[in-house]
Amino acid sequence: MKKIDICLTPNLLPLYELSDRIVVVVDVLRATSSITAGIATGVKSIFPVAEVAACQALQAQGYIAAGERDGKMVAGFSLGNSPFDYMNEALQGKSIAMTTTNGTLAIDKSKAAKEIIIGSFLNLTAIATYLENQEYDVLIVCSGWKGKFNLEDTLFAGALVEKLQDSFEYECDSGLAALCLYQTAKGDLMTFMKNSSHFRRLKHLDVVDDIAFCLSIDHFSVVPYVINGNEIVKK
Amino acid sequence: MKKIDICLTPNLLPLYELSDRIVVVVDVLRATSSITAGIATGVKSIFPVAEVAACQALQAQGYIAAGERDGKMVAGFSLGNSPFDYMNEALQGKSIAMTTTNGTLAIDKSKAAKEIIIGSFLNLTAIATYLENQEYDVLIVCSGWKGKFNLEDTLFAGALVEKLQDSFEYECDSGLAALCLYQTAKGDLMTFMKNSSHFRRLKHLDVVDDIAFCLSIDHFSVVPYVINGNEIVKK
Repeated sequence: MKKIDICLTPNLLPLYELSDRIVVVVDVLRATSSITAGIATGVKSIFPVAEVAACQALQAQGYIAAGERDGKMVAGFSLGNSPFDYMNEALQGKSIAMTTTNGTLAIDKSKAAKEIIIGSFLNLTAIATYLENQEYDVLIVCSGWKGKFNLEDTLFAGALVEKLQDSFEYECDSGLAALCLYQTAKGDLMTFMKNSSHFRRLKHLDVVDDIAFCLSIDHFSVVPYVINGNEIVKK
Repeated sequence: MKKIDICLTPNLLPLYELSDRIVVVVDVLRATSSITAGIATGVKSIFPVAEVAACQALQAQGYIAAGERDGKMVAGFSLGNSPFDYMNEALQGKSIAMTTTNGTLAIDKSKAAKEIIIGSFLNLTAIATYLENQEYDVLIVCSGWKGKFNLEDTLFAGALVEKLQDSFEYECDSGLAALCLYQTAKGDLMTFMKNSSHFRRLKHLDVVDDIAFCLSIDHFSVVPYVINGNEIVKK
């Protein structure tokens, strides 16, 4: 039977063998949700980078620049971090450079994988179906928060383990814990998340609409994946 | 309000500020349970070390040597890893050197803390009461398994967060997750643990009695703590 495992933060990635696995990178709030929303609605590619300067360099090459600092769109950029920003007819066929610290780090540190795909609640079933049809073991890499465990990415991991539990076995306790957390939370993910550190960090209440959307399941059937090291396109 | 946080594996310790905190090191199966049992029943001190050779060196200095490799007591040693081995009238007033990889690493990496105390289900309430009466923030350090998350140490962390939730606040999602897991599992910790990787790794069924004992709550009221860098004695 194929195996599925969960790396709870990118800082634990050195403990995992990646070479023969498909990695699912998840950063529910909000990078991989925004990427999924964009790629599903016609964006040609999305290039995640950690720093504003790197994003500006790509902007100079013709990419549309996206990102926030302290809850505000970076000066001179065209898009923020909200998934709603990425669902726009004007972005059809365009390439976007987005700043996101935790998600970029998770992708960078997963480079040794057979393939990196982008997961979120928005494309949960599409990801599960894709993985069921591949012959490789799977590692879900949670982006976490500044290297630490976070709740929302682990809940996604639990949701994916639940979907795949008949076709994959999990070896590590992290799979069991994520599944247990998801099964406790899934009746009302939003209420469960209201106790999380992400909610407590929120300064702008308008982000609550983003979160509600990011926690909604199967809006899209796209499987975004990483090519050429860092650029994300539709499978 | 004082703060409590949970470091899910020693590999994440560099992310935490230790200098003004009390660290609770936990390695439920079985190092910190055995240490608690020993110190509670009259052992003078326990010196945890990672390697058999280091344990033998302490044995040459007069320590009673304890430890297993591949489920068998190390040749020439007097005690194994079972907590039952440590509850023995013949050990009254003696000092023990024990080999334990995960637990030793957790203690070593926590050296910068204000104080390190030793937690287990066996002395849960004693640990909670002690921490309530101190003025410092707390970090629970789970020993994990070879650097990865494990279930049993996280369940202990959740039990301690539950005990302390009126006198401490938790900042990180790891506290919320541990509490949720514990509240799901606490009705029957043993059944919950039967899905864990530790159970699946078991080669010898006689260890099941050890596990049942290690999951039993408040057998003892001792608070073991670390002095001189590495040696554990009664508070």
